[in-house]
Formats: sequence, C-alpha cells, structure tokens
Amino acid sequence: MRISHLGPTGTHTESAAIEYDPNAQLMPYPTVKDAVHAVERDEADLAICAIENALEGAVIETLVILQNEILSVNISAEIVIPIKHALIGIPNQSFTNITTVHSHPQALAQCRDNLMALVPNAKPVAALSTAAAIESTTRNPNTLAIGNIRAAKPQSLHVYNPDISDNKNNQTRFIALGKNLVPPTGDDKTSLIFTMAHDLPGSLVDVLSPFAKRKINLSRIESRPTRQQLGTYYFFVDIHGHQDDTLIADAIKEAQPKTQWLNILGSYPRWNYIKS
Amino acid sequence: MRISHLGPTGTHTESAAIEYDPNAQLMPYPTVKDAVHAVERDEADLAICAIENALEGAVIETLVILQNEILSVNISAEIVIPIKHALIGIPNQSFTNITTVHSHPQALAQCRDNLMALVPNAKPVAALSTAAAIESTTRNPNTLAIGNIRAAKPQSLHVYNPDISDNKNNQTRFIALGKNLVPPTGDDKTSLIFTMAHDLPGSLVDVLSPFAKRKINLSRIESRPTRQQLGTYYFFVDIHGHQDDTLIADAIKEAQPKTQWLNILGSYPRWNYIKS
Repeated sequence: MRISHLGPTGTHTESAAIEYDPNAQLMPYPTVKDAVHAVERDEADLAICAIENALEGAVIETLVILQNEILSVNISAEIVIPIKHALIGIPNQSFTNITTVHSHPQALAQCRDNLMALVPNAKPVAALSTAAAIESTTRNPNTLAIGNIRAAKPQSLHVYNPDISDNKNNQTRFIALGKNLVPPTGDDKTSLIFTMAHDLPGSLVDVLSPFAKRKINLSRIESRPTRQQLGTYYFFVDIHGHQDDTLIADAIKEAQPKTQWLNILGSYPRWNYIKS
Repeated sequence: MRISHLGPTGTHTESAAIEYDPNAQLMPYPTVKDAVHAVERDEADLAICAIENALEGAVIETLVILQNEILSVNISAEIVIPIKHALIGIPNQSFTNITTVHSHPQALAQCRDNLMALVPNAKPVAALSTAAAIESTTRNPNTLAIGNIRAAKPQSLHVYNPDISDNKNNQTRFIALGKNLVPPTGDDKTSLIFTMAHDLPGSLVDVLSPFAKRKINLSRIESRPTRQQLGTYYFFVDIHGHQDDTLIADAIKEAQPKTQWLNILGSYPRWNYIKS
C-alpha cells in the first residue's frame, strides 16, 4: 500500500498514515493537492488529508480540493488521531538557559500557558512548520522546538516533554482518498457536498428533510462560500449510513433535485466502529 | 449615535458603520472585542462587526465573541457592503517605476491577477493591515498600496484604480450589536446559536425540524468546534422571521429542549428589505 501525504517526514498527517497502515510505503508531498494528484495519477494508492481539527475547525485546504476539483477519487476511510505537541531540543540542556522556543504559530499558541510555566523567559519564534522548527533546533543550543514527537528521533534530539498542549482534547480527523469504493460494513458514514440554486433561499431545510424524515443521523455540516455571491455556499454534510443502503440511497435520490449540484464524496467505515 | 468599530480609520468596518448611519460618531477600537465591550460599558450605542465575507467565509474573531462571551448585547441590524481594493500611492508616479506593492496578504492575494497585468515587475510586500500599508506608502516613492479608498484622502494620496480585485463579487456582511431589542418590521432575520449534548449524534436534524415543518427559511448555518471534543460544535443559524412572530417563537420553543444550550442572538431587519 502506497500512501501519499503532506510532508515532510514528521507531520501529523504522516502519523495518521501510519495509524491507518503501519506497513504502508509513505510518500510525502509538498502540498495536500499534490498528495491527492499522486493518487489520481496512480503513483499512490491512497492520499491521507487532514479535514477537521478539534480546536481550529475545518481544514480549508482539503475542503477546497473536494469542492473545486473534478476528482477521480473518493473518501474511503477516516482516521482520528490525538494531536500532541512535544517539547524537543538538543539533549542535556537546562531550561534556565533556553532563550527561544521555535514552532508553527498555531502550535505556539496552543502551548502558550505551559510554555509560560516551563520556560518563562524564552521568546516564542515563528517557523513555517513544526518540522522546520525541529530542524532549526538541531543547530542551535539554548533553543527548543515544539512539534511531533516522531520528528525528534531521526535528528537525535531529546524529547523534554511528550505533550505541552494547554488543551488536551486536541484531535484531528483525516480522510483517505482512493479510487476503490468501499463496501458497507454495517457502521458507515457517507460524505456529501452540495450547492443550492441562488434563487432558492432557505432550501437547505428542503435538502436535509429527506434525511430527517428517515431518521438518518447527520453528524456534521460545514458551509464554505462559493465565492460567487454572498450568502451562497458549498455544504459539506456527513451522514450515518452507506450509499448502498436503500434508506440512504432513497434519501439522496429525494434530496438531489432540491440542490443545484450534489456529489457523493464517498462511503466509508466510521472511525469509532474500527476502534471500539 | 455612537458607533464603535475595528479601527483604525479607513477599515472596511468603518465603511459599514458609515453605511449604517452617515451621521454617527465613529469610535475606532484596536480589536473587535474591544468595540463590543465599549457597547457593554455604555461607551458606545452600537458595535459594528464583520461576520461573513463572500470570498473567505465566516469571520472567526466575531463568532468567537458571540459563542464565548456572556453578552449583554444582541444583534440589532445587518449591513452588507461591497469590498473594493483600491490601488493607492503618492501622486504622479509612473507604473513602470513601481518596485513594491504593499498590503495585507489577503488583499494582495485577492488582486494577484490584476497586479500582474498592471505592475508586472513590482514585488508584493505583506503589511499588518491595509491601513498600515497605505500609511507606509506615504513615505515611499516607487511603491503603491492596496486598501480602502477612504484611507487615501486623509493622507493626500492618489487613487490610481478604485478597484483592482480579481473577483468583483466580494462583499462583507456586518452585524450591529446593541442593547436595544428591535421590533418586527415584517421582513426580519433571527440569529441563533446552539450546542448539542455530546451523547446525541445526529440530533442536528431534530433541532432543525421544528423550523422545517413550519416552512421557516434557514438562510445560513455555520459550525465551529467547541474545543471540548472532536465532532462537537457551536451551530450559528440564521432564520427568516422575528423572534416575536408566533411561528418563530413556537419553533424555537420546540427546538430548545433538543439542544444542550440555545441562545437567541437577536432579531433584526433583513438587509435586502432596507435597500430594496
């Protein structure tokens, strides 16, 4: 199994790929879009893409790919992993000598309180990625970096703390995009995207009603602007059930004519089902 | 009428405040939160806050205020204005001599194609705000800035082009937050925020059904993570109608017990109603 993902080595997306298949051949790409195109060109079997973080919300870069591209791939799995921010640096440093802590601004912000407690005199310094921050700390004593624990080992760095996140509820949900359709498992999710005609305000409820009246659970709804006109949106909806289930298929068939455009992004096993 | 808004002078929020009341006393504040607190402390009568942009989507800073704060204010109006990116600089410059164009990265991105056509050799340079970019261009010949046309006049700068946006559909919707409740006008919107209990996946449809079965139009739904647990959200929903209308009041009364927490953010005249 060849899995493409946002690189470099040591990203959280790489961790999700390993969680999905520990034996996979990992193929890092510079952008999420490049990772998806690798599957479309048959260079990889699956692309793993972050879609939603518990603290920050939707991952816009992935939603834009799903809404704008004529994709020859569909969602075939979801993976949820905890996001931990490890404090990493050259071994045998004293915290009292640390002058700077490097990381991506989002990671720095998510560890602000703990950094204040651990290294109150260190200055936070922004890096382009957590991987770049860890890379820079290999050359600089008296600095630490915040990043993925997996990125420390190849650089012979010490993990001073495996997780200094202020909020321990941080998780990211990833999707796997591939060319194969996944048969029903009995506990599945189906992801849909749709838009509505401009002259039909309020038709969102009309689109959702076919699911509601069949008691189909709707676990997520995300709206993104179409960029055509204020108040017009792409809606991303996750429902419980498989597109091959008669109940789901009937609901989609009834909902489709009430949309301007509806696309089934895929049916795949629910993550809870796999783990529990 | 004292209107607080995100400053400095020349922001799009200031333009929205003037659109709402050309005779208002304008009170710029450094953050959206400060502008809202000014109303809570009775230093201002209304705070104008951007809530949604046609190209970028929800304005997270404003949503976070609505979801996290115990507010003594409610939404009492909405204002929609076109967003135009003017090309501004010291007068009498030749485009062939321009070496840099300064602006907020979002504005630079939204004008990329037109900049390539107009000043192909100029380097884009990021500024903290469009106002800061325009301020810096007053001191630097051979530079231009992209920003709000209103910011050019006080600095005696020339407007080389009133709008170089690549996408002319750019609009921003603002809300006005105040202490007074607004009576029904016959064409109103009501904004709600709610969360659902963690152990009730799929209950979103249960919450929306009381509106659907009464044929109440739902013009917008926006979800934001609660930051407590992946898959739990604050939902921001706009419906057509006033909370004092019996139909709306009944629907809210039926929906409320299906939520964990529901708050009415306000009822206010629809923007289209005012303008058309």
